[in-house]
Amino acid sequence: MPRTDVPQTTIQRLPLYLRALLQAEEARRPVVNSVDIAEMCGTNAAQVRKDLSYLGELGTRGIGYDVEALIAHISSVLGITQQRRVALVGLGRLGSALLSYRGFAERGFEAVAVFDSDPAKIGSRAGSLTVVSTDDFEAVLEEQDVEIVILTTPAGVTQQLADRAVAAGVKAILNFAPVRLTVPETVALRQVCLSTDLQVLSFHLAQGQQ
Amino acid sequence: MPRTDVPQTTIQRLPLYLRALLQAEEARRPVVNSVDIAEMCGTNAAQVRKDLSYLGELGTRGIGYDVEALIAHISSVLGITQQRRVALVGLGRLGSALLSYRGFAERGFEAVAVFDSDPAKIGSRAGSLTVVSTDDFEAVLEEQDVEIVILTTPAGVTQQLADRAVAAGVKAILNFAPVRLTVPETVALRQVCLSTDLQVLSFHLAQGQQ
Repeated sequence: MPRTDVPQTTIQRLPLYLRALLQAEEARRPVVNSVDIAEMCGTNAAQVRKDLSYLGELGTRGIGYDVEALIAHISSVLGITQQRRVALVGLGRLGSALLSYRGFAERGFEAVAVFDSDPAKIGSRAGSLTVVSTDDFEAVLEEQDVEIVILTTPAGVTQQLADRAVAAGVKAILNFAPVRLTVPETVALRQVCLSTDLQVLSFHLAQGQQ
Repeated sequence: MPRTDVPQTTIQRLPLYLRALLQAEEARRPVVNSVDIAEMCGTNAAQVRKDLSYLGELGTRGIGYDVEALIAHISSVLGITQQRRVALVGLGRLGSALLSYRGFAERGFEAVAVFDSDPAKIGSRAGSLTVVSTDDFEAVLEEQDVEIVILTTPAGVTQQLADRAVAAGVKAILNFAPVRLTVPETVALRQVCLSTDLQVLSFHLAQGQQ
C-alpha cells in the first residue's frame, strides 16, 4: 500500500490529517471535507486535497471523505496498521516522558525495551518494562525484534549507540539528542529539535513587533 | 528585519539551517556552501539556496555563505537576537524535561515562570524557579512579561489555560497537549505532536518492506 511517489512534505502532513480524522471519529462525524480537515490542521483546503490526491481517488466531490475509510487508508500508507516495536535508550526526564506518552501506544507504537547505562537505573521498572543495560544493547534489540530506536541520550554517546543499533539491524532511528547523526541510506532517521517550534513562534512575535 | 513575505515552509526550515550553522561555527568553519548546509539538514542544496534567497543577497557565488554573518542574519529574521520570556504550564515528566532542555536557553529562550495546579508541586523548586499555582496564572504572566506559554497540561484543561494566557496578553503558545486549540488570529500557535515523527519513520519502514 505505501507509495514511493508521495512527496516527503505530504508524508509529514499525513500524521496531522490522521489526528484530525481520529478527532472527527471521536466526535462521531461520519464524513468530513477538505475544509474541515484544513481547519483542524491549521492548513488550507487546497493543500489537503492535493496531499490526499497522492493517495488515490478517496473523496466524493461535493460530499467529502468517509472518516473511517480515510483513517484506514492513511494508517495503511503510514504503515501503522501493524504494531511497530520500539526501544527507548536513555531514561532521563525526556525518556521517561516519552515512555509514558499515551499517544505512542494509541498510534500503533509499542515500547518493548528500555536501555540506560546508569547502574542505579538498570534493573528498575519503567512502566511495564525492566530497564536493561546498554551493555546488552545489540542482544536485546535482536531478541525483541526492535524496528525503531528512540535516542534520548547525552550528545557524546549518541552516534555510537546509533551505529550499534544499525549494526543490530534496526531500520529507523528517532533522535532527540542535540547532535547530527550519520546513518546508512537504508536507515530512516528523524531528528527532533524541541527548540525549532519556539523559534518559529519567535519569528511570528518578531513580525508582530515591526 | 523580519520579512512577512517569507513562506511558512521556509520559516520552518530556518531553525534547521541555524543549527547546522552553529555546528559549523563550533567546528571553526568560517564559510559553508549550500551543499554543506543541505547535507547537515537532510535537504537539498537548491532548497537551501531558494530558502536563503528570501532573506536577501547573502552568499557569494562560488564561495558560499559567511557562517557568522548568516547566523546573525537568520537569528535576526527569527527574532531570537533578543531573549524571549517563556512560561511553562504543567510540571509533569514532559514539562520537567523541557525545563531542563539546554537547547532552549542556548537558542535565546528564558523560562521565567513555571505553573502547576498540584498542591504538592506548588512552592517547590524547578531549576532556578519556584512553581506557582495556576490560580495566579494571569497575574504572574503579566508581572513576568511572558511572551510565550508552553502547555504540557492534561488535554481537558488546556483550552481554558490557552484562553487565560491570551486574555493576559500572551502572543504565542506552544502546545504539547493532545488537543486542538483555538486562539485568536493575532496569537501564534504551534502544536507539537510527538508521535508524528514516529509515523513518518513508520512510513519509511513500510516502504522498505514492500
